[in-house]
Amino acid sequence: MLVKSQASAVDRRPSIDLYDLIGEMFPINRSLTGAGVRNTLGIVARHIDLDIHEVETGTAVLDWHVPKEWNIRRATIKTLDGKCLVDFAENNLHVLGYSNPVNGVFSRAELARHVHTLPDQPDLIPYRTGYYADDWGFCLPHRLWLGMNDEHYRVEIDSDLSQGSMTYGEFLVPGETRREVLITCHVCHPSLANDNLSGMAIMTALAMRQSERRGRLGYRFLFLPATIGAITWLARNEAMLDRIEHGLVLTCLGDSGPFHYKQSRKGATIDRAAAHILKHCGEPYEIMSFNPYGYDERQFCSPGFDLPVGCLMRGVHGTFPEYHTSADNMDFVKPETLVRSYSTLEALLDLLDRDCRYQRVDGRGEPQLGRRGLYRAIAGQSEAGGATQMDLLWFLNLADGQHSLLDMAIRADVPFARLEAAARLALDAGLVRLVAAA
Amino acid sequence: MLVKSQASAVDRRPSIDLYDLIGEMFPINRSLTGAGVRNTLGIVARHIDLDIHEVETGTAVLDWHVPKEWNIRRATIKTLDGKCLVDFAENNLHVLGYSNPVNGVFSRAELARHVHTLPDQPDLIPYRTGYYADDWGFCLPHRLWLGMNDEHYRVEIDSDLSQGSMTYGEFLVPGETRREVLITCHVCHPSLANDNLSGMAIMTALAMRQSERRGRLGYRFLFLPATIGAITWLARNEAMLDRIEHGLVLTCLGDSGPFHYKQSRKGATIDRAAAHILKHCGEPYEIMSFNPYGYDERQFCSPGFDLPVGCLMRGVHGTFPEYHTSADNMDFVKPETLVRSYSTLEALLDLLDRDCRYQRVDGRGEPQLGRRGLYRAIAGQSEAGGATQMDLLWFLNLADGQHSLLDMAIRADVPFARLEAAARLALDAGLVRLVAAA
Amino acid sequence: MLVKSQASAVDRRPSIDLYDLIGEMFPINRSLTGAGVRNTLGIVARHIDLDIHEVETGTAVLDWHVPKEWNIRRATIKTLDGKCLVDFAENNLHVLGYSNPVNGVFSRAELARHVHTLPDQPDLIPYRTGYYADDWGFCLPHRLWLGMNDEHYRVEIDSDLSQGSMTYGEFLVPGETRREVLITCHVCHPSLANDNLSGMAIMTALAMRQSERRGRLGYRFLFLPATIGAITWLARNEAMLDRIEHGLVLTCLGDSGPFHYKQSRKGATIDRAAAHILKHCGEPYEIMSFNPYGYDERQFCSPGFDLPVGCLMRGVHGTFPEYHTSADNMDFVKPETLVRSYSTLEALLDLLDRDCRYQRVDGRGEPQLGRRGLYRAIAGQSEAGGATQMDLLWFLNLADGQHSLLDMAIRADVPFARLEAAARLALDAGLVRLVAAA
Repeated sequence: MLVKSQASAVDRRPSIDLYDLIGEMFPINRSLTGAGVRNTLGIVARHIDLDIHEVETGTAVLDWHVPKEWNIRRATIKTLDGKCLVDFAENNLHVLGYSNPVNGVFSRAELARHVHTLPDQPDLIPYRTGYYADDWGFCLPHRLWLGMNDEHYRVEIDSDLSQGSMTYGEFLVPGETRREVLITCHVCHPSLANDNLSGMAIMTALAMRQSERRGRLGYRFLFLPATIGAITWLARNEAMLDRIEHGLVLTCLGDSGPFHYKQSRKGATIDRAAAHILKHCGEPYEIMSFNPYGYDERQFCSPGFDLPVGCLMRGVHGTFPEYHTSADNMDFVKPETLVRSYSTLEALLDLLDRDCRYQRVDGRGEPQLGRRGLYRAIAGQSEAGGATQMDLLWFLNLADGQHSLLDMAIRADVPFARLEAAARLALDAGLVRLVAAA
Repeated sequence: MLVKSQASAVDRRPSIDLYDLIGEMFPINRSLTGAGVRNTLGIVARHIDLDIHEVETGTAVLDWHVPKEWNIRRATIKTLDGKCLVDFAENNLHVLGYSNPVNGVFSRAELARHVHTLPDQPDLIPYRTGYYADDWGFCLPHRLWLGMNDEHYRVEIDSDLSQGSMTYGEFLVPGETRREVLITCHVCHPSLANDNLSGMAIMTALAMRQSERRGRLGYRFLFLPATIGAITWLARNEAMLDRIEHGLVLTCLGDSGPFHYKQSRKGATIDRAAAHILKHCGEPYEIMSFNPYGYDERQFCSPGFDLPVGCLMRGVHGTFPEYHTSADNMDFVKPETLVRSYSTLEALLDLLDRDCRYQRVDGRGEPQLGRRGLYRAIAGQSEAGGATQMDLLWFLNLADGQHSLLDMAIRADVPFARLEAAARLALDAGLVRLVAAA
Repeated sequence: MLVKSQASAVDRRPSIDLYDLIGEMFPINRSLTGAGVRNTLGIVARHIDLDIHEVETGTAVLDWHVPKEWNIRRATIKTLDGKCLVDFAENNLHVLGYSNPVNGVFSRAELARHVHTLPDQPDLIPYRTGYYADDWGFCLPHRLWLGMNDEHYRVEIDSDLSQGSMTYGEFLVPGETRREVLITCHVCHPSLANDNLSGMAIMTALAMRQSERRGRLGYRFLFLPATIGAITWLARNEAMLDRIEHGLVLTCLGDSGPFHYKQSRKGATIDRAAAHILKHCGEPYEIMSFNPYGYDERQFCSPGFDLPVGCLMRGVHGTFPEYHTSADNMDFVKPETLVRSYSTLEALLDLLDRDCRYQRVDGRGEPQLGRRGLYRAIAGQSEAGGATQMDLLWFLNLADGQHSLLDMAIRADVPFARLEAAARLALDAGLVRLVAAA
């Protein structure tokens, strides 16, 4: 159920142009492995000091093995008289991901077994993969395929599947403590703008921002091929997983739909924090229960790990018509929604970092605000330092060492930032002391 | 509030004709004690190896004593010139249960003090008892009574109340463990088809079915005179009550109304299981909170015992117009609703028996389903062995040794049987091991 | 959200005329300190044996100090030719509370800085205070002020702010145990009938009633200047606060609006008890969550104390047009609503005192009610001793030593008094024994 949020978001802006960054990465062909991911992470690495990890084909990771590396140079379907009908160079969605190489003349009937189309969306190219299918294939508009009535076609895919490595990127902004926020996105989709270049661009901007400040928490950003990337990272980092206090998977954040936040499997502070931020972000949103399908939250929330990881998106996989088609292009993502997604995430990261508990030093009863210059009329709800009188009263009432600022903000039903402002007023007046992080 | 359930019930059928069995028992006069109960249990005993217990009149059972045995041979009201107006032989509801014998001529005014009618339902005979009233009485259609304007009538009840015994039936199907499911019905109502011949017939069929299979749990079926029968059984079996893991009282299961499940006093797995089965049974249903009135769940859920016993019914006592009248007859119960009640209970018993917890042997992350032939497209929700891909993902995600199959089915909101099918797939693939019964 | 309650209140009446008592106290000028409070408490003390406490100006109490004592004899605004336009003798709201003395001729512009009006309610005098403002001021109808167009006016306030004391009243009715109910109201408002002479009158009547009976709990009644009075009492009584088992702040109980009960900060039995009483009081009502603004529940529920104190009111501060104006007068409060507020509070106090737990002596199963004369038809819901058969069944079912009468009444959804009546029947029949107070 969509919920109307209560207030407008603060106006925070990324230090790079998100839409331009997506545009730069859009033409590259990406898959689980290969040059496309490497080139994409190279673009990201121009903005942040990204660690590039290469994991050799065949490496055992939990129940899986790292697959062969796939690279492709060119792919076409031509008429026998040489007219090119389908060309990978025009749109990399045309080739089934992980296609074997092929070169020859095929009858239309033979070719049909390797052609994928969308009869209900006849002008769109579908996005399909066959990672473990040992097959080859083409994806094309249904209308084009209907018009291809020759008896034979010349088909070429110049690709190779070979011993190599899988590439992923990792960037850690250390915090004052060893506790961390994990933020991940998938990087294995070819020319799809929303799914998931939007996530990659926003994560890059968030990483840039966090690298310019030192927070209480560390921030670990992972750019992962879906599933196998997450599994690989988990397998290689089991010893440090207890550091992860909150986690977020980012995807599909550039379309014009409402926010969707999918809760973690076990229920965690990230779920309460995300719901609170969305309630006050000024856009409609929906909270979804955890389910074991979707993005890499499936891996992070699997029973052996069960990490506190949720997923933030706008459009939900499989539910919007552009999903996994050539319509998920540069027209489908909007500069302004990208920025609003970014600013909402900034607010969420700030909340996680700044959430803490305070205790009153004077102990009992209400303090006398008047002689400290903190007493103002409630009726007018006049502000001081971003907090109303009522915010200050809520803060002082709940500053018992048990309630975190997030607890207070949820109970008072006002934005976190206002409770934080109240805390500053009280701290400056010597009324409270910091007890601990939340 | 009535709830629409989500799916259609599986088609399970009893091995006897429930409607015929009710028809066979219908003419017999039953009460707390006497030949009627004995004859009825004799019919049941032709289908299952029933233990018949006789408990002597006067036996102390908890706060009660077993009452005298009541038997009746004939009862009539005649005009002084010998015309028979009311005859017990025509309908055993005509006599107040536990009537003393009487034989004589009474004025209409004297007779009136012993006549029970339903002015609002003038063509129906009410069902009334006077177990501890030391009285006699007749029940007749109000319209008939209004037409009886003679000054005197000849009245005869040939009954006796004497030292004897109370009869109840018990049948145990042992399980692999000492834990049991208790299933009970009341057997003390005369010619009322829904209340409770429907319960007796369905319980007989369930007992037949369970006796043909060996389950994890034992199944104990009790055919009890209401209240005093339950109290007697409890008093005689206190030492084994810890074996009872789930319990159900069955009544009024043949009418055409929606299901009603009344929860146990303390809240128990049976309540979650029954609600889950009803949600997916294909019929409307309602969940009712416990209250201390109704059937023998009153005794099983009394404070000293507080057993996990609910009650399944269609029509709720006191709320349908046929209740406790001659309209609760063979026309009121329907063969097809009896079968649907039976099949719903089969599904519930199967769930209770098969509910268990699994743990992933591979431990962490999602297993690679593809190389085990378990990976299929989610979109189509194609099934394998009765489970969709999503069911299997739910199962593998929650197979942490903590969640029972019922827990999983409720969280995934799909029928238990589909999670069970997913468990079989995973077990066959060596992905999980059985941890324990739920 | 307003809730319609389920039944009509019992008809209990105070032993004094609440409206007359309010009328007697109405003309007195009250403030945080001074003769007005003393005179008012003198009137209360004619009805109950009130302890009058005087706390010296300057005494440190928690984070505060007791303020100077304020007394005022006369205040006027006159034209230069001697015509009196505003006279404190006519309405004590005319003077800003804690006004410094002043005597002189002021220009209209100078005077304007000391005049408070309500432009939206031009015929009403606002109620304003300047306790710590070191100022003087007049409150007058906006329409009057608009008509005052002379260039100068002669102003006099004959008041003094001096070393003295703050006065509050306390009255304890001891109970059989050391556990207490705290009941408080504020006494510092001048001629405002609802806020809070209604609370003072009703509290006086409740104190009279409790002093005539000895209950399980003690009842401590506090007549306090708002905020500083509560803080002073808390500071002086910290060692005994563990005795307070329930607490209530009473205010605004004479208007014709629905009841509002504001819950305690921590959630307590008083909240469940008040909600139960209101549900069955026969009037509409609303339950409000705690917030740290309002009356002295702010102090009692502050983090260092966190006592189980709620607040009962009809009109809610700041939400009715008469609030803190001269329209909160003797016409605004109604004799009959005062009595209904009183009787609802009587029922609540009785519930708190009588709530207890019982245990069945016979232990298990339903007792045989018939041989004890306690069995009656459920259908008719005939009563015996104030309890229906169903009430008795609920009581006997839940008399397990764990459920209090309040727990039972809430679960059965019937008035507490009926469960209490059922308990008496069962106690008389020897079926239960008293285990403990709730």
